[in-house]
Amino acid sequence: IYHFHQKNGFACMMLSDLFELVQFLFVVTFTTFLLCCVDYDVLFANRPLNHSHAGTAPDRAKVTLPDAVLPGPQCAQRIGASGWLLFLLVMAGAFWLWRLVKALCSLLGYWEIRSFYTTALNIPSEELCSHSWQEVQARLISLQRRQQMCVHKRELTELDIHHRILRFQNYTVAMVNKSLLPVRLRLPLLGPLVFLTQGLKYNLELLLFWGPGSLFQNKWSLRPQCKRASARHELARQLARAMVLLGVANLLLCPCVLVWQLLYAFFSYAEVIKREPGSLGARRWSLYGRHYLRHFNELNHELQARLSRGYKPATKYMNSFTSPLLTVLAKNIGFFAGSILAVLIALTVYDEDVLTVQHILTAVTLLGLVVTVARSFIPDEHTVWCPEQLLRRVLAHIHYMPDHWPGNASRAETRSEMAQLFQYKAVFILEELLSPILTPLILIFILPARALDIIDFFRNFTVEVAGVGDICSFAQLDVRNHGNPQVGGAG
Amino acid sequence: IYHFHQKNGFACMMLSDLFELVQFLFVVTFTTFLLCCVDYDVLFANRPLNHSHAGTAPDRAKVTLPDAVLPGPQCAQRIGASGWLLFLLVMAGAFWLWRLVKALCSLLGYWEIRSFYTTALNIPSEELCSHSWQEVQARLISLQRRQQMCVHKRELTELDIHHRILRFQNYTVAMVNKSLLPVRLRLPLLGPLVFLTQGLKYNLELLLFWGPGSLFQNKWSLRPQCKRASARHELARQLARAMVLLGVANLLLCPCVLVWQLLYAFFSYAEVIKREPGSLGARRWSLYGRHYLRHFNELNHELQARLSRGYKPATKYMNSFTSPLLTVLAKNIGFFAGSILAVLIALTVYDEDVLTVQHILTAVTLLGLVVTVARSFIPDEHTVWCPEQLLRRVLAHIHYMPDHWPGNASRAETRSEMAQLFQYKAVFILEELLSPILTPLILIFILPARALDIIDFFRNFTVEVAGVGDICSFAQLDVRNHGNPQVGGAG
Amino acid sequence: IYHFHQKNGFACMMLSDLFELVQFLFVVTFTTFLLCCVDYDVLFANRPLNHSHAGTAPDRAKVTLPDAVLPGPQCAQRIGASGWLLFLLVMAGAFWLWRLVKALCSLLGYWEIRSFYTTALNIPSEELCSHSWQEVQARLISLQRRQQMCVHKRELTELDIHHRILRFQNYTVAMVNKSLLPVRLRLPLLGPLVFLTQGLKYNLELLLFWGPGSLFQNKWSLRPQCKRASARHELARQLARAMVLLGVANLLLCPCVLVWQLLYAFFSYAEVIKREPGSLGARRWSLYGRHYLRHFNELNHELQARLSRGYKPATKYMNSFTSPLLTVLAKNIGFFAGSILAVLIALTVYDEDVLTVQHILTAVTLLGLVVTVARSFIPDEHTVWCPEQLLRRVLAHIHYMPDHWPGNASRAETRSEMAQLFQYKAVFILEELLSPILTPLILIFILPARALDIIDFFRNFTVEVAGVGDICSFAQLDVRNHGNPQVGGAG
Repeated sequence: IYHFHQKNGFACMMLSDLFELVQFLFVVTFTTFLLCCVDYDVLFANRPLNHSHAGTAPDRAKVTLPDAVLPGPQCAQRIGASGWLLFLLVMAGAFWLWRLVKALCSLLGYWEIRSFYTTALNIPSEELCSHSWQEVQARLISLQRRQQMCVHKRELTELDIHHRILRFQNYTVAMVNKSLLPVRLRLPLLGPLVFLTQGLKYNLELLLFWGPGSLFQNKWSLRPQCKRASARHELARQLARAMVLLGVANLLLCPCVLVWQLLYAFFSYAEVIKREPGSLGARRWSLYGRHYLRHFNELNHELQARLSRGYKPATKYMNSFTSPLLTVLAKNIGFFAGSILAVLIALTVYDEDVLTVQHILTAVTLLGLVVTVARSFIPDEHTVWCPEQLLRRVLAHIHYMPDHWPGNASRAETRSEMAQLFQYKAVFILEELLSPILTPLILIFILPARALDIIDFFRNFTVEVAGVGDICSFAQLDVRNHGNPQVGGAG
Repeated sequence: IYHFHQKNGFACMMLSDLFELVQFLFVVTFTTFLLCCVDYDVLFANRPLNHSHAGTAPDRAKVTLPDAVLPGPQCAQRIGASGWLLFLLVMAGAFWLWRLVKALCSLLGYWEIRSFYTTALNIPSEELCSHSWQEVQARLISLQRRQQMCVHKRELTELDIHHRILRFQNYTVAMVNKSLLPVRLRLPLLGPLVFLTQGLKYNLELLLFWGPGSLFQNKWSLRPQCKRASARHELARQLARAMVLLGVANLLLCPCVLVWQLLYAFFSYAEVIKREPGSLGARRWSLYGRHYLRHFNELNHELQARLSRGYKPATKYMNSFTSPLLTVLAKNIGFFAGSILAVLIALTVYDEDVLTVQHILTAVTLLGLVVTVARSFIPDEHTVWCPEQLLRRVLAHIHYMPDHWPGNASRAETRSEMAQLFQYKAVFILEELLSPILTPLILIFILPARALDIIDFFRNFTVEVAGVGDICSFAQLDVRNHGNPQVGGAG
Repeated sequence: IYHFHQKNGFACMMLSDLFELVQFLFVVTFTTFLLCCVDYDVLFANRPLNHSHAGTAPDRAKVTLPDAVLPGPQCAQRIGASGWLLFLLVMAGAFWLWRLVKALCSLLGYWEIRSFYTTALNIPSEELCSHSWQEVQARLISLQRRQQMCVHKRELTELDIHHRILRFQNYTVAMVNKSLLPVRLRLPLLGPLVFLTQGLKYNLELLLFWGPGSLFQNKWSLRPQCKRASARHELARQLARAMVLLGVANLLLCPCVLVWQLLYAFFSYAEVIKREPGSLGARRWSLYGRHYLRHFNELNHELQARLSRGYKPATKYMNSFTSPLLTVLAKNIGFFAGSILAVLIALTVYDEDVLTVQHILTAVTLLGLVVTVARSFIPDEHTVWCPEQLLRRVLAHIHYMPDHWPGNASRAETRSEMAQLFQYKAVFILEELLSPILTPLILIFILPARALDIIDFFRNFTVEVAGVGDICSFAQLDVRNHGNPQVGGAG
């Protein structure tokens, strides 16, 4: 919670919570409005407009925006007529109210932390941004020495703070490294695929850490029976049942979530795609990559800074690969689309009445999109090819690589493994869209089989530290020498 | 004058003078034309067009451009009808004639310098560009040794040349560094603000250096009474009176200048804003920064090269700061505008008749602008934050910083002080637009109070050098060890 | 042939051959369609449309795309009516059939090479991309040791392979360096000009290397009479006659080729010019530069990698030059076009009916183009000028420069000589367009005079190597110490 605060400041937290609520409201209302209250016949000029003032300008009647909007009562009637829409609206309203209550609660929490900052740590909120987390941490430790904030322990070290903040993250990182989580799927046609979305992660955390019936009884200690060897089969059965139940719940909510995801993605990305389609070809560290490359006890902002430093060489490395086959295809598709586009543009420039011919503008827009996408697959003539060097520069920042990477930087396998950590933004959006469908399937069919392994993992690798609670003991983990287990590692 | 020539070459000087005159003419004529000679009712299709050939195509009459232009006599009549416009036109005509005469005079001067270059210095005009100023200077000095060009002194050194070229600039730099000029304002709401525009600078130079009644009696020596201690109060009173008079003159000319500035800014920037709104977010060294960071005796092109080298790190440094609050706001405004835009674009792509609905295109354009501006405030996810290093790289080029900067590179105060030297282009344009209003106010209300200080400054820090005239003796100035007082410093 | 394969892989070769054929077909068909089958009166709304369903919406009849296309029979009739078009179509058809046959033959060749790769070299085609040429070469040599592939020689060295692959390229490079080829023209008005296009190069190769009656009797040895001193005059006469004949053939084919080049250039570049006019201002290594800078025995991909490394500094070097005169012109043209554009855009944003006024959109598009082009000539305010350093960085990669370059990097002559090697893309396109006209002229009027020199060159600088055939003996060439004559040089 301290950490969270460090990253934002009170006003920001409040604003982003507020805006999230407003966004939800906006998306729901605007979609309803578009579905029910717009007279598309008027908008598309399929139907002549019988104005009340038709007498004045019968031959060139201007269509104004209000003409295309249906009057209120007619609109309300159309909403009422469709039962499914009404159901979704009621659902959305209920969900929104629940989030409103949650937001208000967390607001109170933020306010408390804010007053803790101003009074106990002597950091007024407007100065918060210019204090780094190191400074805040140092003040915390000295405060503990003076005032004995936590009752459990006299001295609070930096390691303790990191352990408390990152308790669950450490477990997750360890599970990803031990390949305990079902993130690597083998699809029949597409080959091995790494799938880890926000939705799946949320469900897993719900199951293991803080949901009802999870392995942790409160925020800092495992339930006692997890530590007993005798109860492991019983526990695994319980966990598997919880997984299936959660999966079914996910399945039931799936349509609502899917509709929401689709709408939100459309509103967020449609305009971007039109304006700069290239941004979808940009890459980002995948959620899987973020867990895979994370050191134990590395704070979020440290990881973020480290991966950001690695972003540029990683992009260069990935872009230095080009498929000759794809290039040939892209060049030719680009040529065909471009030549039709050239003719259309030339005609338009010569006489703009061409644009009023139906679907010409549509064709121009779509062809433009095709050309841009095709052109993005054609590598620049003058690129310099040196994958080994680039990969080495990436590794200097991401700090980890499989043993078979060095020396094989130019091989396609290395690249595709890297692509699992560093995915296209388009892939990321697609994964998030598919998440509501795939998540319940994973929860019901794949995860229960691993329940026993997970229980064993928690039993074996948990250590209790005084004043901190149960933590993931990565000292015992032999996964790989993954950063120093002391404080953070990366500076 | 030599220096001026070095930077351009004769043909360029002539052309840019010519084009300035043509630009003025164009702006005035085009604006008059737009105001009086265009039939907007026809252009906006509010009024059906009764063509002479209406019989041929009554249902789909094409509007051509000449239809929207009023015939000459009607146009002239409308111009004559508005007295205010007529007055402005006459003013503009007079001003233009005055500038024409001035341009012709300076043209003669250029021609003289050109023949000096070709005959005395042996540099034909087409080779001028490939000679650096150092070479020209060396030729000048050797010529002086042979031919005794200036009568005052036998030997002409590089220092002398620099002193002659930069006489007034050195005074201005010294005054800026001693904070004698009223460039730092404390506005009631906006806090401290640095305000120095071309207009204000022009007025100050008029007052102090080369206007009638200025401190300098000719281009190279102060008026004798400036040097006498007894006359200082009398002189200060005179100067203060001149300031107020100049301020009142500015106030009277303010409307004309303001209209001109607005028109010129619109014609220059409107199209840029539409095409790439990001260019307004670019930064440039402010006029204040240019004086503040200038070494004594540093030539224009040396300063320019030095600041250009510092441009890239300075931009990076300024961009590395992001306000989290602004980011949250920008993200959400971008989302709302973007989602409406997405819907409009989708509708347009589906059927282009949507565009004929009134104000849809306006909405699309404005929303696009909003989204672009909002997006420019959202920092890139993958930026690396290292302000100290960047600031050090900036300082390597700008050569000066206040004592409290190093070590505080990440503080907001450092950034805002830097922003005074390195301002947004949008701020620059705004300042220039406000200049006609603020300049007279400063001249009347703030500057007269400092008249005595200015007189004292000139009295104390002026040295007479044989063959050069009165110069600013920065050897006596203890402002800061601001570059070496020899030749230029930066190479 | 081996080398060719190394660069692509079978599927790519096949696809690009296929697409070339399809492109040709597409260009021809689409142009015919545009010329004959589109009713432009309907498209430009000059003629009201008498729909069959005119009764439904008489006042706002929507024009759809099929309305503007003429029915099939009418279309065929119009094609038949124009004899010239029919002739061109028949020519194109014949040419296409000939290329189809050629493509099929080469396809068989590729298939053979592919099976050689898979069986003899053990490289399946999907792994081809991840094998570098070095690896393939090593396998080739070891295979030769085991299986005695070539009968002429027991041991095959890397040098032999390079000689066989680059036999003709080495001759061309040597001829370019000895200025034997007529690539430097002295035009009456434009001054010295370097002209070497794909078309001219193709003709030269046809003449010298693999055409009927060329100097080489087969792919690996010169005709015996070339080596005899006595026959040189006779041979030169033959060669000159062949040149004239080829030139006349070129002249006859000129209209067809010209039409094709124009169409192809329009389809390829029109859309690019509209979308990003800046790309025409990009530079590329000219064909002449590629031959001038090539080491002997340097493989294509090595040359490409070397020039690519030099691309960035070369671009920077060329861009660091700015003509002050051009800048002044560009600024003012940009201002005038921009201000008219600003007014048009402002009107459009205010009311989109302005767009329906005829030729407004045309004006907006053209003015936008003018502004963009003008703006590309205005140098950035903040560029740093250091040509010497940049030129040195270029030379580190291109490995060769005339003796008068170093120390004169800032002179205009150095720049214009560099521009011959590193030309604008626009110049490249223009040269290719002019090629069909200029090539026959060069072949008929300039080249025959040099026939004797060329014969002498071949006679003097050819060495026979066992198992390789006749090669260009650059050991005897004193042109310049142009890389090491062993294998490649650049790695």
